[in-house]
Amino acid sequence: MEEIDIERVEEVDLDDPVFVEGLPGVGHVGKLVAEHLVEERESTLVRRICTEHFPPQVTVDEDGVAELADAEIHAVETEGRDLLVLTGDHQANDNQGHYRVTNTFLDVAEEFDASELIALGGVPTGELIEEYAVVGAVSDADLKEDLEDAGVEFRAEEPAGGIVGTSGLLLGLGGRRGFEATCLMGETSGYLVDPKSSKAVLEILEDLLDLDVDFEALDERAEEMEEVVEQMQEMEQGPAPGEEDLRYIG
Amino acid sequence: MEEIDIERVEEVDLDDPVFVEGLPGVGHVGKLVAEHLVEERESTLVRRICTEHFPPQVTVDEDGVAELADAEIHAVETEGRDLLVLTGDHQANDNQGHYRVTNTFLDVAEEFDASELIALGGVPTGELIEEYAVVGAVSDADLKEDLEDAGVEFRAEEPAGGIVGTSGLLLGLGGRRGFEATCLMGETSGYLVDPKSSKAVLEILEDLLDLDVDFEALDERAEEMEEVVEQMQEMEQGPAPGEEDLRYIG
Amino acid sequence: MEEIDIERVEEVDLDDPVFVEGLPGVGHVGKLVAEHLVEERESTLVRRICTEHFPPQVTVDEDGVAELADAEIHAVETEGRDLLVLTGDHQANDNQGHYRVTNTFLDVAEEFDASELIALGGVPTGELIEEYAVVGAVSDADLKEDLEDAGVEFRAEEPAGGIVGTSGLLLGLGGRRGFEATCLMGETSGYLVDPKSSKAVLEILEDLLDLDVDFEALDERAEEMEEVVEQMQEMEQGPAPGEEDLRYIG
Amino acid sequence: MEEIDIERVEEVDLDDPVFVEGLPGVGHVGKLVAEHLVEERESTLVRRICTEHFPPQVTVDEDGVAELADAEIHAVETEGRDLLVLTGDHQANDNQGHYRVTNTFLDVAEEFDASELIALGGVPTGELIEEYAVVGAVSDADLKEDLEDAGVEFRAEEPAGGIVGTSGLLLGLGGRRGFEATCLMGETSGYLVDPKSSKAVLEILEDLLDLDVDFEALDERAEEMEEVVEQMQEMEQGPAPGEEDLRYIG
Repeated sequence: MEEIDIERVEEVDLDDPVFVEGLPGVGHVGKLVAEHLVEERESTLVRRICTEHFPPQVTVDEDGVAELADAEIHAVETEGRDLLVLTGDHQANDNQGHYRVTNTFLDVAEEFDASELIALGGVPTGELIEEYAVVGAVSDADLKEDLEDAGVEFRAEEPAGGIVGTSGLLLGLGGRRGFEATCLMGETSGYLVDPKSSKAVLEILEDLLDLDVDFEALDERAEEMEEVVEQMQEMEQGPAPGEEDLRYIG
Repeated sequence: MEEIDIERVEEVDLDDPVFVEGLPGVGHVGKLVAEHLVEERESTLVRRICTEHFPPQVTVDEDGVAELADAEIHAVETEGRDLLVLTGDHQANDNQGHYRVTNTFLDVAEEFDASELIALGGVPTGELIEEYAVVGAVSDADLKEDLEDAGVEFRAEEPAGGIVGTSGLLLGLGGRRGFEATCLMGETSGYLVDPKSSKAVLEILEDLLDLDVDFEALDERAEEMEEVVEQMQEMEQGPAPGEEDLRYIG
Repeated sequence: MEEIDIERVEEVDLDDPVFVEGLPGVGHVGKLVAEHLVEERESTLVRRICTEHFPPQVTVDEDGVAELADAEIHAVETEGRDLLVLTGDHQANDNQGHYRVTNTFLDVAEEFDASELIALGGVPTGELIEEYAVVGAVSDADLKEDLEDAGVEFRAEEPAGGIVGTSGLLLGLGGRRGFEATCLMGETSGYLVDPKSSKAVLEILEDLLDLDVDFEALDERAEEMEEVVEQMQEMEQGPAPGEEDLRYIG
Repeated sequence: MEEIDIERVEEVDLDDPVFVEGLPGVGHVGKLVAEHLVEERESTLVRRICTEHFPPQVTVDEDGVAELADAEIHAVETEGRDLLVLTGDHQANDNQGHYRVTNTFLDVAEEFDASELIALGGVPTGELIEEYAVVGAVSDADLKEDLEDAGVEFRAEEPAGGIVGTSGLLLGLGGRRGFEATCLMGETSGYLVDPKSSKAVLEILEDLLDLDVDFEALDERAEEMEEVVEQMQEMEQGPAPGEEDLRYIG
């Protein structure tokens, strides 16, 4: 195996595709969006990337079959723009790996003649959220107008700590290599997997890419998470008075 | 010294050998099995692997002679299949090293025309165990039937955290290189070295590889561990009443 | 991208320039001085250095535009000596990177025929400071006389822990490559960003390099920091009696 | 600068020299011995090794002159065997570096036709020591007899955790490259710099290498350490009754 290994799973013809990244990160906002696009749509796995910069690990699927840690790039057909969607369970676990693996992702984007990149992620607010804003950052100021029209907010010097990991480098390295690169970050508390934040990001994507997305699966997931949150709150507060009585009786 | 150094200690002719790995890990389940096979059988050290991905360390033997950190591959003759057994005291201590050292192990397996790999390990349950199940994972679904016949359990998406380290990569990298790779994981509490779990794994191997194993040494080791556990439990509970009395008197 | 990438932003002619380094460190003393020189003077960004030894990160500017982690070298014209000033938000985050990136900085210095290096930093005293001494270290004892004349103190075997990071290596590697290298370290408590210590260092530089510096921006920054310190002290001590009364009434 | 840089400071002719290593480690036992040999004897610095595997750091000497982190190899003339003595303030700070830097030390030993290596260190006992035993380990069992005659103890499988770092690798890698390698470890509590343990090791070396060593400087250092220990014990116990009285009066 090379340091970074690109497996050419399938060849497809795409028309000016947009490269969309959704790897694990804050609130798993980006990952949920990317997986939703891949699962809801006609999609084809085109490239698998394995690398010694990922953890030395396999996951076991429902049949007991092991699969090496990887990142996957899927071709997704939509009624709007063609998409190349990057998903996976891992980011590189060292700094050099982050740079090198992101450059490999950009190589694949170039190979498919994608000139636009959209990196998806979450931006932590530290508190529970009612209205899910989507914050943007770009490789070039000219990209902002269309994004603002679609409802993306731009805030000076935010996020304050910068954008770290693959999403940040897709902007930074992608911009240097001539891609039009955007990062869309859904606001999220930062404490939990957040399908509602993912939905806010997906609504922006719908507009930007002329998609028509079915949100049902994402709504279901959001309801599940709400139940989890409720259970956690109950556990913290202890049993309600009525429940306590029942226990004494039973 | 190269980054990874293969010392060709001895040349032997093996007939379609099975490559069996047992390096340190959860409950040292795999390591105990591999060492038991090497010690109970006619075995020959054929390859030593030293690498800068192992700790910078020597161990001192009973004569005061130092030996560089290594992994050892032994040819083991049995009444059933020929075996190549990988043992040692170390796993690589960085991610890149894990990938590179495992690929070296696969190179050795290939050199001896081994087409089947069995990685041995433990799966932690977090509680004391009465019945020691052996859980399996494979590189290819076709391998499952024989394993299930031998008593191996397959559980959807377990272990939940995947399989990490050499065992995981032997499945992941081995499968990609065309080996038929299996991982056998004995259930174990995860808190202690567990010879009983090793015995459960070894009983499966007996069946799979037509071996006839003498369990005496392993049973003795299990008894020693049980005494250790009892002593620990006593220390936790404090002295029994009778003992306390004696102390007052004495 | 190479392991270390030098972007040649602009070509300029400099006359025997002095290479001045001010990267983040103790009290951000060096960084404040370097930024002050770049901002107060006619300056031109001549080189940008990006490297996989910096964090995998972009910062977002006030327009929402992302910029890849980098170090910047500016040509600065003064009434005295020409300067090449190195600034940035990062140091390498691994040891090998420190050595390699510093050697790249030295390559740039050589390219511009700079034969003198001045590394700027802070030296922590652990207590609040009234008189801000500037402590020096050199690659060659012959350099000391001029520095002592300018008010730099030399103290045997100080700082006791040596000089770590880019400043240290500019002395160590620079000296080996034949540069006349000096490190100027402003005393600072070590707990806070310290513009007063930066001013003390800058006053030395004024003398050494025949500069005429306007300290206004640095003085303002020092006043801001003093307000921050006062607020912190008040928060620690709780409200003063009068304020407490007001609160009861309000 | 190369990954590892050997500066050829001086060329000397040595007759079958013994390579003696004393880098920082448990109780600084080895380092004190090596420094004592270099300082008490006619010695010449012959090689300086700098490497990006050392910390990115300079130390500042008593004149304020900075020196890059390095390891130094000195030729030492004695009335007995010629010595090559390795000293310094650092060990490599990553595993790969440990292997590579130790191989460089062996390259230098080979260049000077040294066929014998003696690595010096301490072995922690965890308690204060009355009689300072010196424990040995060797690359080859044939080396033991002479060592035992000189008073070195060999203990089966000790130290239990093996020998880590440069000393361990000089045995492990040195043995593989054909050197006759010995490690001498002075017992030491492990809590403090221990010149008494160093003296015990040095007495063994005196015998092994036909040296005649003046222990005065080491004895002085031992006395200083004893004063330090006494002061620490007093601080722990609080003032003695008499002293307390004086304070009340004063």
